[in-house]
Amino acid sequence: MTRPQPWPRQSFSYLHPTPTRWADNDVYGHVNNVTYYAYFDTAVNALLLARGVLDIQAGDTIGLVVETGCTFFAPASFPELLHVGVRVATLGKSSVRYELAVFRADEAEGEDAVACAQGHFVHVYVDRDTRRPVPIPADLRAVLESLQTGEL
Amino acid sequence: MTRPQPWPRQSFSYLHPTPTRWADNDVYGHVNNVTYYAYFDTAVNALLLARGVLDIQAGDTIGLVVETGCTFFAPASFPELLHVGVRVATLGKSSVRYELAVFRADEAEGEDAVACAQGHFVHVYVDRDTRRPVPIPADLRAVLESLQTGEL
Amino acid sequence: MTRPQPWPRQSFSYLHPTPTRWADNDVYGHVNNVTYYAYFDTAVNALLLARGVLDIQAGDTIGLVVETGCTFFAPASFPELLHVGVRVATLGKSSVRYELAVFRADEAEGEDAVACAQGHFVHVYVDRDTRRPVPIPADLRAVLESLQTGEL
Amino acid sequence: MTRPQPWPRQSFSYLHPTPTRWADNDVYGHVNNVTYYAYFDTAVNALLLARGVLDIQAGDTIGLVVETGCTFFAPASFPELLHVGVRVATLGKSSVRYELAVFRADEAEGEDAVACAQGHFVHVYVDRDTRRPVPIPADLRAVLESLQTGEL
Repeated sequence: MTRPQPWPRQSFSYLHPTPTRWADNDVYGHVNNVTYYAYFDTAVNALLLARGVLDIQAGDTIGLVVETGCTFFAPASFPELLHVGVRVATLGKSSVRYELAVFRADEAEGEDAVACAQGHFVHVYVDRDTRRPVPIPADLRAVLESLQTGEL
Repeated sequence: MTRPQPWPRQSFSYLHPTPTRWADNDVYGHVNNVTYYAYFDTAVNALLLARGVLDIQAGDTIGLVVETGCTFFAPASFPELLHVGVRVATLGKSSVRYELAVFRADEAEGEDAVACAQGHFVHVYVDRDTRRPVPIPADLRAVLESLQTGEL
Repeated sequence: MTRPQPWPRQSFSYLHPTPTRWADNDVYGHVNNVTYYAYFDTAVNALLLARGVLDIQAGDTIGLVVETGCTFFAPASFPELLHVGVRVATLGKSSVRYELAVFRADEAEGEDAVACAQGHFVHVYVDRDTRRPVPIPADLRAVLESLQTGEL
Repeated sequence: MTRPQPWPRQSFSYLHPTPTRWADNDVYGHVNNVTYYAYFDTAVNALLLARGVLDIQAGDTIGLVVETGCTFFAPASFPELLHVGVRVATLGKSSVRYELAVFRADEAEGEDAVACAQGHFVHVYVDRDTRRPVPIPADLRAVLESLQTGEL
């Protein structure tokens, strides 16, 4: 196994504040590995909702999660404030690959801060009825492009 | 069934900020009833940890949850910031009954704000080994008393 | 506080098998108090779905959870198989009050088995659009009545 | 992106039965992507506990999750019984890479059944105190080897 290097805080222009919860910790007293994916889900969807490019109830086009992954470097624990960085690694015609990283609050402030966990998340956009891939809608694409260039 | 009245925001001196998460919503698009109890658990334990009166790993005395309950008045949803009020209703020799209420962020600011859900949570303190009730430790009692009088 | 007595296994005609999961345990190594409500939610809804009287996506009438509560007697832990008993305590025109109890698998087999946790769950049925209470639909009422009489 | 092929049911000798729960479904009415990792965590740990090679409270050696990933092919939903296949892909001196796959109950019975989701999970064993990698204990290694050869 080759292990990736932790991504630096400086490589993320968007951070989603994420206070931990009691139940995030498992019996070992640290945030359970599963919970990081809940942070990712929340950060990506909160961003899209805040930008007005995700309509959960009525959109014709829905984003299916087709692949996720995460590498864990150092533990986090409740109670602790985390920041979840979101960036766009690849933007295709119908799909987007996000890269996500979790920073502990103290470290997130430092210039040299690196991720305690990092991963990816791939959405493919499909027609709600046919479930066939469709082009990413223009308004969503504009948001993803600004996220990709770090303008967001 | 007699339904209680929603508690006013003004009756809580301590509020724990609680951003919702994607998975808090169930299939109906609102925060699931179970999730409110996770908010309660987090608010109470975060408060005790912040005050230095809860040692999860090594305390001789542990608080067992013996009873909880919640009444639901109005829905909340992700994405939304909630505030969870915590107060002490009854403080016994070995037990404490908390009252908790969930306020939506907008409403939490208003003078007339009332809870969208409210409930209670009873801890009995026991010896870690014998599991027999013991008096609430003095430092914890001091925090609970200040919470009860609204000084906290 | 007066503590209720644990309900006997014999007072439930319907039991929903519930294998515990890793994340059900919290840092103290036992099933977290919040998780019991997730067991309740699952047991009630699985029963209604299995009987064909709950249409999550398209029903005109939806059941709102207006009140829940739980009393905890003894711990359970992952890995362990639990059984969740469901019965109907009160059946009104628009509302139903379920009583639920959690039995550990070994104990659930014994004649003298009693609940390690027990609680209640109140559904009020409302019109999906107006959110005003409506009579419980006839097919659902028939299932609830058979549950109430122990015929189910 | 090259997408992997779904693994066949026949390639797993060990399956962990996993009934879905109400809260496994997200607002789209299908099991949320995060929940699959909770299934993986439960299946692996249940297996190790059942074989007596995991002591959560007192083991000198603990398994840290350093990497996980999942690919999603087809939705699953509550209420539904799933089976989670567990196998060992790579067994190193201090680490083990599991491969996991989720099968819907109907399909799990069929000879041609394939996974609706599949992924991996890497444990590195470390000393509880120093957190330095240590050799996988002999009793655990024996279980992992029998899992690898399909004898388990």
